[in-house]
Amino acid sequence: MRRALLIGIGTGDPRQVTLQAVDAMQEVDAFFVLDKGATTGTLTGIRQEILDAYAPGAELIRIPDPPRDRSSKDYEAAVDDWHHRRAVALSVAITREVPDGGAAGFLVWGDPALYDSTLRVIRRAPIALEPTVIPGITSMQALTAAHAILLNRVGEPIHITTGRRLAEDDGRNTVVLLDADCTFLETAHPDDEIYWGAYLGTPQEILVSGTVGDVGEEIVRVRAAARAEHGWIMDVYLLRRP
Amino acid sequence: MRRALLIGIGTGDPRQVTLQAVDAMQEVDAFFVLDKGATTGTLTGIRQEILDAYAPGAELIRIPDPPRDRSSKDYEAAVDDWHHRRAVALSVAITREVPDGGAAGFLVWGDPALYDSTLRVIRRAPIALEPTVIPGITSMQALTAAHAILLNRVGEPIHITTGRRLAEDDGRNTVVLLDADCTFLETAHPDDEIYWGAYLGTPQEILVSGTVGDVGEEIVRVRAAARAEHGWIMDVYLLRRP
Repeated sequence: MRRALLIGIGTGDPRQVTLQAVDAMQEVDAFFVLDKGATTGTLTGIRQEILDAYAPGAELIRIPDPPRDRSSKDYEAAVDDWHHRRAVALSVAITREVPDGGAAGFLVWGDPALYDSTLRVIRRAPIALEPTVIPGITSMQALTAAHAILLNRVGEPIHITTGRRLAEDDGRNTVVLLDADCTFLETAHPDDEIYWGAYLGTPQEILVSGTVGDVGEEIVRVRAAARAEHGWIMDVYLLRRP
Repeated sequence: MRRALLIGIGTGDPRQVTLQAVDAMQEVDAFFVLDKGATTGTLTGIRQEILDAYAPGAELIRIPDPPRDRSSKDYEAAVDDWHHRRAVALSVAITREVPDGGAAGFLVWGDPALYDSTLRVIRRAPIALEPTVIPGITSMQALTAAHAILLNRVGEPIHITTGRRLAEDDGRNTVVLLDADCTFLETAHPDDEIYWGAYLGTPQEILVSGTVGDVGEEIVRVRAAARAEHGWIMDVYLLRRP
């Protein structure tokens, strides 16, 4: 039996890490990262920077991420198959690098509970792995902090969804993650308020806010330019119906 | 002009604080807490413990919280009036304790963006206050970490709501905060899954999970007993429709 420590690290500012996360890093025998290639170059770099700061000398082992079938019509089956292949690749590496009774570490962007697959992959591993989760600051929290706003209005519910599901939402207080297509342009009213942010918590942070009618097209332009400049982008937004 | 630093401190474990929060505490001239009486005795104690650990010698000034009209039929107007009276009481204290150009500090339970009124109160203060928000771990993140579960299932949206609005929700992946009435007993199906937690991140932490049919009544009993024993309770749960 080995332990798997899933450690939330926030959105890129090494000071956004909790002391609990720093404590957990001390217990880890080897850290693993599923390397998705180009886009994760910078993200892997930030993970290395965090390790250098809080667990100097710790090893960060890159595991080539199995390719995901993005052409499949059955989204859930394609994700399921991908998670299975990731679980096998990880188990092989963990068995090699972590002694029995030891701990494998995963520095998870944001919080391991929110639209992250690490926990699912760990649960499917063909070797015995006992997961422990350390929460981290999510991009939606970094977004609201940067804009100095609340997620909710008094007493109102909040929805968290992805670009592909946004059209089903009532848009009252909606946080949208993983939306490369700026779906709000199709679904939002021109007078809806939008609070958008990218590279939150890093020196590259960009913030735009206003009504969708006023700043919607600007967000599309700014996003495309930043993505071209950096080679990757991570962004999030809050939509609010007046 | 003075600054107001709203610092999220998580759910009670002083190690759940971020390094960014620790940094921010060093900039504060005086910390303030709105004292709601009995229930906040322990919560104020935890705040003091955090200050003793990370900003030794810092002063925590208790401001008696103006009473809130809970009998009013107009919920939003009653909350609005309450926030106004809190803003005035705070402004008087800040003017007295924080020099011009200095910083007032607020240690906010969880994250300042989620169902917390501090930012609203600061925005309504009759004195000039520039807010800065430092995110903190929320009770829903402490909940999912303690149960080692994800908030969402693959691709699904997440709803965050309060007990009083739960009946309007579709219950698919719903986080419920501020529900003293265990409203899930009225709204959930017996085969819905519930993940419940109280005093998360503290030595008193209690976790219960299962289907609502199997553990619903147990949660009501455990909650009432814990509340009687400690004199207060902070709890949260995730409902998931199979």
